[in-house]
Amino acid sequence: MQTPLKGACVIGQSGGPTAVINASAYGVIRTALDNEHITAVYGAANGIKGILADRLYDMGQEDPEELRLLLNTPSSALGSCRYKIADPDVDETDYKRLLEVFEKYNVRYFFYNGGNDSMDTCNKISRYFQRVGYACRVMGVPKTIDNDLYGTDHCPGFGSAAKYVATSFMEVYRDARVYDTGQITIIEIMGRHAGWLTASAALASHAGAGPDLIYVPEVAFDMEKFLADVTAIYERDKNALVAVSEGIHDAEGKLIAEYTGSAKSKDAFGHAQLGGLAATLAAIVKERTGAKVRGIELSLLQRAAAHLASQTDIDEAFLAGKTAVEQAVAGESGKMVAFERDMSSGQYVCKMVLLPLEKVANFEQKLPLDWITPEGNGITQEFIAYALPLIQGEPNRTLEHSLPRFANLKKVLVK
Amino acid sequence: MQTPLKGACVIGQSGGPTAVINASAYGVIRTALDNEHITAVYGAANGIKGILADRLYDMGQEDPEELRLLLNTPSSALGSCRYKIADPDVDETDYKRLLEVFEKYNVRYFFYNGGNDSMDTCNKISRYFQRVGYACRVMGVPKTIDNDLYGTDHCPGFGSAAKYVATSFMEVYRDARVYDTGQITIIEIMGRHAGWLTASAALASHAGAGPDLIYVPEVAFDMEKFLADVTAIYERDKNALVAVSEGIHDAEGKLIAEYTGSAKSKDAFGHAQLGGLAATLAAIVKERTGAKVRGIELSLLQRAAAHLASQTDIDEAFLAGKTAVEQAVAGESGKMVAFERDMSSGQYVCKMVLLPLEKVANFEQKLPLDWITPEGNGITQEFIAYALPLIQGEPNRTLEHSLPRFANLKKVLVK
Repeated sequence: MQTPLKGACVIGQSGGPTAVINASAYGVIRTALDNEHITAVYGAANGIKGILADRLYDMGQEDPEELRLLLNTPSSALGSCRYKIADPDVDETDYKRLLEVFEKYNVRYFFYNGGNDSMDTCNKISRYFQRVGYACRVMGVPKTIDNDLYGTDHCPGFGSAAKYVATSFMEVYRDARVYDTGQITIIEIMGRHAGWLTASAALASHAGAGPDLIYVPEVAFDMEKFLADVTAIYERDKNALVAVSEGIHDAEGKLIAEYTGSAKSKDAFGHAQLGGLAATLAAIVKERTGAKVRGIELSLLQRAAAHLASQTDIDEAFLAGKTAVEQAVAGESGKMVAFERDMSSGQYVCKMVLLPLEKVANFEQKLPLDWITPEGNGITQEFIAYALPLIQGEPNRTLEHSLPRFANLKKVLVK
Repeated sequence: MQTPLKGACVIGQSGGPTAVINASAYGVIRTALDNEHITAVYGAANGIKGILADRLYDMGQEDPEELRLLLNTPSSALGSCRYKIADPDVDETDYKRLLEVFEKYNVRYFFYNGGNDSMDTCNKISRYFQRVGYACRVMGVPKTIDNDLYGTDHCPGFGSAAKYVATSFMEVYRDARVYDTGQITIIEIMGRHAGWLTASAALASHAGAGPDLIYVPEVAFDMEKFLADVTAIYERDKNALVAVSEGIHDAEGKLIAEYTGSAKSKDAFGHAQLGGLAATLAAIVKERTGAKVRGIELSLLQRAAAHLASQTDIDEAFLAGKTAVEQAVAGESGKMVAFERDMSSGQYVCKMVLLPLEKVANFEQKLPLDWITPEGNGITQEFIAYALPLIQGEPNRTLEHSLPRFANLKKVLVK
């Protein structure tokens, strides 16, 4: 345990939002505001970009009740970014500017709330500060619906998105079977490289009303095999419900979403901007089977559905933020808060642990291959046992006229 | 008040399902099972098609608790159909068959749970039975997320779908603004000819986080005006959120969804099978503005989302079914249960009334033109005042492991 640093803290949010990323931000902000060693709590406008632009919000000026509403407010309340920071060994420009802004406000704690790419950013900043001898404790607070962060049992944001996916499948399952004329329904779920969220559709099957077939990016997608699978189920049941991950690709690595041949743009990290896979597959299946086919893309809904969040996920997301602050004050730095599953009591218990950022940065944790059925079109019971505890508990949402009452922050810029 | 008929009843469900159509079915089934004059309660498999095929389920054999779960189970539990029955003056075949099956089981009450087309079917059957002198009381029980049934203040199913649409817009609004790089988001909502459900997106704006622009089928859609509207908002705010109804069309009546030129199939009633409008508009807007554009289709989710149902809607749907049975036993026939809004107490009160089926059948109730802004791209406060009471109250859902526990009916066929 080291001496706590006396100074301000900055919290930034980065990457694609989730239903509970604000619960983590609240965990950081509330804990930091209440900590005697932290002199001011600043929120970076749009993550690292806000720090570079000297756009920091004074969280001390927010109404405590509005801050509390962050627990049930989806998306990133401080704004997010997808900013690829340079390697400090190649270009120090951004780092010098960060240092300048941090020194200006005497920032001694930096919390970055994000996924793989954000942990990489976080790690680079941490190493830079160490190298130049600037005393600032840097902590990563995980989030991602993709559940693909390395070294953690699971990621905040995943449980809520998984619950949304499972519930939506259960509802659509009923709808898709309402006529006796047959229908094939293909639902596209987010997940570029990891199939965790798509696998969550299996929770609906576990509850008796889910997909017949599930395709994840961990297994190469074979169009002919897929068409044979769907056709066999449709011929047997006059109905088929299929879950596909946006990132499924063929054996050569070509994305199935790109089978239409349209040029897709890429984001700042060079990821192809996906979408339209469900429509593409629906058209191919329709042509082959002649059946009525519907393609549904869950799109932004799956990561923004705070109304269907898992209370377990909210609690853990909050705790991740809280732990980051407490551990940083206690002397930790260059770490990411991670989750360890403890089943020793026979019950699911989630423990907070710390991982070195360099171990987490840029690695992607894939769905274990032995949790995918040998046929490559389904998910095993191991996954159900893994995921079910993560979706438990109904959120205690604040409503106004039966619609969500989200947090309205003042966002007063620090001058 | 006429003498109650002694005999069996049949309940059928027809047309596109809703989140609460089963609440109406439960209103009919529960009330009929408890009624001393009704000797048996049969559910028609897939609506009128099930009667023609002599496929009736014995509702008396169902577990009462499973039946109660229908209150929170989406889609049509008995199965649905889109079957266009002939004009009895032209072709009596179907009617003779219906009569044969009804006589076989001594059916004296027929309840048909559906929208416009179903009320037409219901009306034709009612008139036929009258003409041939078969004593059977026929009642329509309304449902439609489209809210376009004539003569009723609103329709069961609308409130829940409206709540889903409003909540989803509020969530996506937050997500779509998370980056400072700008985004235009276009969300497509069901509604071929009437804009009620699309207008519901305005409830999100009323709550502070909704669409900037709303386009409904009641007003001819002008592509150039639309592009100018979107561009103006995007240039001002770096962001734009747009609600469009699947049925928007140009001044010549051509559907905007068909601007891609792809041949669309038609359903049994000759309605074009819509879909893909959001993607079509997104591509056009992207080309014009160069902005990042996302098209989202709410698809089946909006009518199946029992998890976000309005308790008001569930209660009214149940009451519509219950009233149909009670009134039929009391001697009414050839009527549809309708809703009358009573605001005399200063509070919203919904009263059950009866309308002659021939007044309801085949008419479509459009959104009042003076509830659409003069620019044709927004919704007025009158709509908010109208719709807000319909979305109130959170459903008391039965959950298992935090996932919905839907009704599992045995569906024992009557021999």
